[in-house]
Amino acid sequence: MLNDTAGPGSAKEAFVAKRIVIIGGGAAGIGAAGAARGTDRDAEIVVYTEYEDAAYSPCGIPYVHGGEIPDFERLFLGTKQQYADQGIDIRYQTAVQTIDAHGRNVRVGHGPPVPYDALVVTTGWEYGKPDVPGNDLAGIYYMKNIREAMQWHEVLEGVRSAVVLEAGPLGMEMVTALCHRGIQTHLVDPGPWALAMATDPDIVAPVQESWQEMGAQLHFNTKLEAILGDDAGRVRGVATSGGDVACDLVVVCTHKEPRTELGAAAGLAVGTAGGFIVDETMATSVPGVWAAGDCAEIPHGVSNVPIQGLSGSHAYAQGKVAGVNAAGGQRAYQPVYVPWAMVAGKWMIGGVSFSETLATALGIPFVTGQAQGISRARYFPDLKPVKVKLLAEPGTLRLIGAQMVGGEGIKERADFLAMAVRTGITLRDLATMENVYSPPIGALNEPIALAAQDALARLEG
Amino acid sequence: MLNDTAGPGSAKEAFVAKRIVIIGGGAAGIGAAGAARGTDRDAEIVVYTEYEDAAYSPCGIPYVHGGEIPDFERLFLGTKQQYADQGIDIRYQTAVQTIDAHGRNVRVGHGPPVPYDALVVTTGWEYGKPDVPGNDLAGIYYMKNIREAMQWHEVLEGVRSAVVLEAGPLGMEMVTALCHRGIQTHLVDPGPWALAMATDPDIVAPVQESWQEMGAQLHFNTKLEAILGDDAGRVRGVATSGGDVACDLVVVCTHKEPRTELGAAAGLAVGTAGGFIVDETMATSVPGVWAAGDCAEIPHGVSNVPIQGLSGSHAYAQGKVAGVNAAGGQRAYQPVYVPWAMVAGKWMIGGVSFSETLATALGIPFVTGQAQGISRARYFPDLKPVKVKLLAEPGTLRLIGAQMVGGEGIKERADFLAMAVRTGITLRDLATMENVYSPPIGALNEPIALAAQDALARLEG
Repeated sequence: MLNDTAGPGSAKEAFVAKRIVIIGGGAAGIGAAGAARGTDRDAEIVVYTEYEDAAYSPCGIPYVHGGEIPDFERLFLGTKQQYADQGIDIRYQTAVQTIDAHGRNVRVGHGPPVPYDALVVTTGWEYGKPDVPGNDLAGIYYMKNIREAMQWHEVLEGVRSAVVLEAGPLGMEMVTALCHRGIQTHLVDPGPWALAMATDPDIVAPVQESWQEMGAQLHFNTKLEAILGDDAGRVRGVATSGGDVACDLVVVCTHKEPRTELGAAAGLAVGTAGGFIVDETMATSVPGVWAAGDCAEIPHGVSNVPIQGLSGSHAYAQGKVAGVNAAGGQRAYQPVYVPWAMVAGKWMIGGVSFSETLATALGIPFVTGQAQGISRARYFPDLKPVKVKLLAEPGTLRLIGAQMVGGEGIKERADFLAMAVRTGITLRDLATMENVYSPPIGALNEPIALAAQDALARLEG
Repeated sequence: MLNDTAGPGSAKEAFVAKRIVIIGGGAAGIGAAGAARGTDRDAEIVVYTEYEDAAYSPCGIPYVHGGEIPDFERLFLGTKQQYADQGIDIRYQTAVQTIDAHGRNVRVGHGPPVPYDALVVTTGWEYGKPDVPGNDLAGIYYMKNIREAMQWHEVLEGVRSAVVLEAGPLGMEMVTALCHRGIQTHLVDPGPWALAMATDPDIVAPVQESWQEMGAQLHFNTKLEAILGDDAGRVRGVATSGGDVACDLVVVCTHKEPRTELGAAAGLAVGTAGGFIVDETMATSVPGVWAAGDCAEIPHGVSNVPIQGLSGSHAYAQGKVAGVNAAGGQRAYQPVYVPWAMVAGKWMIGGVSFSETLATALGIPFVTGQAQGISRARYFPDLKPVKVKLLAEPGTLRLIGAQMVGGEGIKERADFLAMAVRTGITLRDLATMENVYSPPIGALNEPIALAAQDALARLEG
């Protein structure tokens, strides 16, 4: 119940505004700020960010590098004035030093403590830094901040060959983007295939083949051993368990690790996935403190295992829930089933929840079915293949996972199947689903239905 | 248990094959034949069709006329030999004259009765013939049979202006196709807007505007009064309640009326929608007789009202159920929720179940929400708008209908929402749905979720 501009006894005493402090200006922080404003018109809302900007879309950066998006300017969501006009006070290039959760204040720079009524921690993530010799050479690109990306974009003009470290979602986008630019691209990944935590090899195979058609060289089951430098301290290649690879640039796309130092020092409990533990209101273990986005961990809806490092859409949605609750409203966040999809190489690939590989690794039993379908009537020009694999719980036949690779409609199908997993839709439901049949946009048989029918046919022997 | 080739007492007596007769060679008939063969390897399966061909896709015809599909040949599903190889005996250009359901036989031409063990009636539909003077002039195109369509395709070369009668799904496709060809196109429809039984005016407005941009002239709330001919007995225009319209060609796209004469004469009960009444196994009121496709009527899953005249996908799925059961298997067909979508003008339009207009007309209460979303990240090139309107049951907030207009992913969303209606998914579920966010294929906020959130916000005042 604090208001900097009106002390006790002033004429404005009747006007009691709440101060909500948000640490972090990414999707979660900006989502929290907007939702807090929507919940409480009078609250004072302050966002601290280390960066020069807030509310741009880092997800767009690979596509500027790849040439699909013509400039960085359009990645910004709004002007700084627009936030000011909403009464959201964003303090740029301002790092929060400490949180005093007991005293309900934060310290910023060398100034006095800044009190808060509610605090939302959205400190995000950072790449796992490769723990190898040469990891401080010039020419190692950690893609994240848009100002740095603009500088690297100029560097890319002179790059002939690049190594992308690890085929997570960002790595897959960057391999595709660098191939688009005509850079000789190497993917180095310790896993057996791309995005191995989420995919099966049969689903990702067309993507990998298309990268090769685009000129990329793929080094799977390959560990990075060192980054090699020249006499000027610049990257000249990498040493791996499979031999040396020459390159001008290393793009680090390792796992997103939650940034929790600040919150952990203030007593916020950290869980098994390395993120802040939150309840369904995004409240942390410390009263008056919420957390959202990549610094928090969230239960997976099927396995109940905590996970973190999801998408910007998840961060934004979590931020909104945290912002509403921090401002005195009531909103709950649901467990996640994690629909995902992307353009990779010449394909769209996506899925939800478990792959066969992951379910097997976790000891989760499943039955499965798959089908190779098409996206339009079989005679319509530019139709695309759509391969679907479904995983279901034995007995109940409730859907527990899906994977797809194809050329159209993968994102929409992933969204659908995530809701199917969440609401307990079964293979029998999907096998008898109705589908739009219209030659330019939909085939006689929906690939999801065909995959479910395949699963039932296998079960019936 | 009949077999023409092996009479009682012959050496083949032990081989008892069932004869399944199917009347009609469209999607339902071919679906029934294939499913019957899959269920009973030994059954004799005979399909009678009046036409020269079976198993082509009439749904593709407008796109050949419009130029998107280069030729008619690719609309055929298989060669005649392929059906013969599956042991499906298709009798082309052969009309069934009568059904003797008591004696379990059909009469074909002037031959002896052909006995059957199981009969599947898939006699399809025909256009309501315009009941106006001039309806027998030359230059009136009832688009249905592919051989006739090939001839009309040549006629179109010389056509400068055309009138399309009624903006049902086929009429909408034909207006679009004729505009693509550069023919001056008039749409004449007694309804207030296109596809008025399924759409609301705000959803269909962009489609209608785009037709006008493509040069079409739209005459809604306009009744056909006569087709006007020249001295040679050829179409020269139409007279309507809004005045005369000159044209060289009239394309009749009136409602699909079920063809039930043959079955009704044999005692098959006909229902309120004009189609054969069937149970969930597609069995008619007469033992040993199944029906499927546009000649049958099916309960709507929400209202339980019988409906008919659905898509080729529905006909095919119903045919498969009828074929399995006719061959001695067991399969049930579900009530329908009717996802639909098409390309119309410069847009994709689609939905499921009720529009606001239809729900209001039927006296079905609803709450609604809508949103104007986008198909990709807001900064990604070629993103398309996606407008979504949702209807839900008051109180439970179960989804009961949806409509969409946009540029990408409409078919996949319609399939999703049909399953949502069927399985009782609510606005609260949809408001909190997870969605893929990936700049080239999915926006931060899924338009379906935004529409559900809008509905909840309205309810909460």
